[in-house]
Amino acid sequence: MESFPNKLMNQAQNQTQLIALDWGTSSLRAYRLGVDGQVLELRALPWGVMRLPEVVSAENSGADGKEGFELAFEQACGDWLLAAPHTPVIAAGMVGSREGWREAPYLSIPITVDQIGRTLSTVRTRTGQIIYIVPGLIQNSALPDVIRGEEAQVIGALSMLDFNKSSSSTEQQDEPDAVLIGLPGTHSKWVQVRGQHREMKSHIEHFSTFMTGDVYAALCAHTILARGMQASDISRGDHGAFDRGVLVAKTPAGRAGVLSTIFSTRTLGLTGVLDAAGQREYLSGLLIGHEVAALQASLTEQRQQFPRVILIGDAALCERYVRALKAYGIDQVEVAEQATERGLWQLALAAGLLTRIQP
Amino acid sequence: MESFPNKLMNQAQNQTQLIALDWGTSSLRAYRLGVDGQVLELRALPWGVMRLPEVVSAENSGADGKEGFELAFEQACGDWLLAAPHTPVIAAGMVGSREGWREAPYLSIPITVDQIGRTLSTVRTRTGQIIYIVPGLIQNSALPDVIRGEEAQVIGALSMLDFNKSSSSTEQQDEPDAVLIGLPGTHSKWVQVRGQHREMKSHIEHFSTFMTGDVYAALCAHTILARGMQASDISRGDHGAFDRGVLVAKTPAGRAGVLSTIFSTRTLGLTGVLDAAGQREYLSGLLIGHEVAALQASLTEQRQQFPRVILIGDAALCERYVRALKAYGIDQVEVAEQATERGLWQLALAAGLLTRIQP
Repeated sequence: MESFPNKLMNQAQNQTQLIALDWGTSSLRAYRLGVDGQVLELRALPWGVMRLPEVVSAENSGADGKEGFELAFEQACGDWLLAAPHTPVIAAGMVGSREGWREAPYLSIPITVDQIGRTLSTVRTRTGQIIYIVPGLIQNSALPDVIRGEEAQVIGALSMLDFNKSSSSTEQQDEPDAVLIGLPGTHSKWVQVRGQHREMKSHIEHFSTFMTGDVYAALCAHTILARGMQASDISRGDHGAFDRGVLVAKTPAGRAGVLSTIFSTRTLGLTGVLDAAGQREYLSGLLIGHEVAALQASLTEQRQQFPRVILIGDAALCERYVRALKAYGIDQVEVAEQATERGLWQLALAAGLLTRIQP
Repeated sequence: MESFPNKLMNQAQNQTQLIALDWGTSSLRAYRLGVDGQVLELRALPWGVMRLPEVVSAENSGADGKEGFELAFEQACGDWLLAAPHTPVIAAGMVGSREGWREAPYLSIPITVDQIGRTLSTVRTRTGQIIYIVPGLIQNSALPDVIRGEEAQVIGALSMLDFNKSSSSTEQQDEPDAVLIGLPGTHSKWVQVRGQHREMKSHIEHFSTFMTGDVYAALCAHTILARGMQASDISRGDHGAFDRGVLVAKTPAGRAGVLSTIFSTRTLGLTGVLDAAGQREYLSGLLIGHEVAALQASLTEQRQQFPRVILIGDAALCERYVRALKAYGIDQVEVAEQATERGLWQLALAAGLLTRIQP
């Protein structure tokens, strides 16, 4: 039987401190976070910004076309808010895009975590709840680049990094720490951060998008390369073919670029070197290799050493990138977990939405 | 009323000397050629190797699955052969691939026109007609490359080139002449040829494939870039956006490669720089620019000067490539016409299928 103080402590520890929404194009993840950002509950719903629940009721005439967002929101966390009214709600991702619930305009980089947290947009739901929406970031270079949603993950990874650092006595904690954070996926993002021991002062300095996953899917399904792959829909983990692909970008032939090298997926099939499954793995390696090679070249041009690398994303995909980075001589790669919810917690802190309670 | 000798001459000039088939993946073009390869008649049919006419008759039981080819062939030129029996028939393109009527195995380069003409495969139709099939070519480099069908066009362009040369008194006709022949399209091919005044001795030395058209179509329809382009299905000939795209590959940002630079199609839309039609043009220019830049870099590496350039293909597409080549400093570009039928004529000559008759 629990003692009275223990019971109080458990209640406090189970108390909702923040509701955090990771609201992307194709899905919505809702986190109920407790003391210190601990995950108390997680819900994954299919209600991405581009596939919201359908509104069938007639009573919504005269509404603003945002009912789909209202419905999805209520399904995601309506009961959590009933049980814990006045809980702050924060959201990141495409929900803040032009096609989202409320546009949270892009902020220009370089920018600190602090500054992002102090520039949240808001939308008020029909029940009066305020949702704080994290802005995306824009890099106004010759070719502009944007991220939206990944900024929260980057901030989450940074918060873990600083935690690790302070447990090490050999590192100098007041020196800024160059970190390269990779978020492989449909659109891979590589974000250069100048970390600080006072994490809210960490700078997001530069980022690059590579449409690797999106291009891979389109090539596999909608170009001539599909023809050789038809017999194989699943990977059998063919490291040989994958590694062969990874290395192409650093050979002389690789300098012809992706538009040219991808054709070898077909010719290595025609010449009997790669079977259907092998062609798929080879192409995956080839594209990721081109991405890593380009990234490395760009850092060299900026006279940046390849800094500490952190990956955030699907575990199997991160494993592919770890392999590819290693092939290009980059061995020091960590994989960060729970980056999204930790980042949203940090942003809520920076925004002053949280009052730290003592359990 | 025609005089007797004139009538004889007209008859001779209208006499079928060769039936030439350009038989690709999605279409079949049949040429009836007369004296000196003059086109007497042309038929375009939809019967590509991957979309042959359906065989409905039951009498074909026990056949070899090639009836679709037989039917297509009879529609294309059955009547021509009835009117002029014993006319030789030559075919190039995917009809000679593994999925074609009869595989004409790839020949390795370097190779002369002569050698290709002396290595035709044959298939006998159910009516006993022999069809000579032109082999594709393979380059057994680190990343193998292949062409099939384009070799005939290259040979056709070469034959015109030599004709032009012999009409010019300022050029030395016995010197080999480095020519770069570009065949833009779904899969652009760039073929390096060492031309000779005795055209049958011209060497095909090297080629590179760029999947530019295939990738462009897949990106426009099946990636996030489609989203900004939905409002525009047709080009309005926006040279500004196209030219802007062409130049990307030679900027510092362009060095990140296609996987990265294509994302700017979207960000230049998000930032209001490009509208829907402009994004389409920009992406077209961007991909073609990357292709031309890679080609130029590869020739520089081979310590080849950018030689005389000849383009073969769709007129509007060739015009795009002429613009892009110009942006990279290559002004001396010619566009060759009727390359396919001229090439098939040359190959039939090399194969000894033709007896030159005097009209």
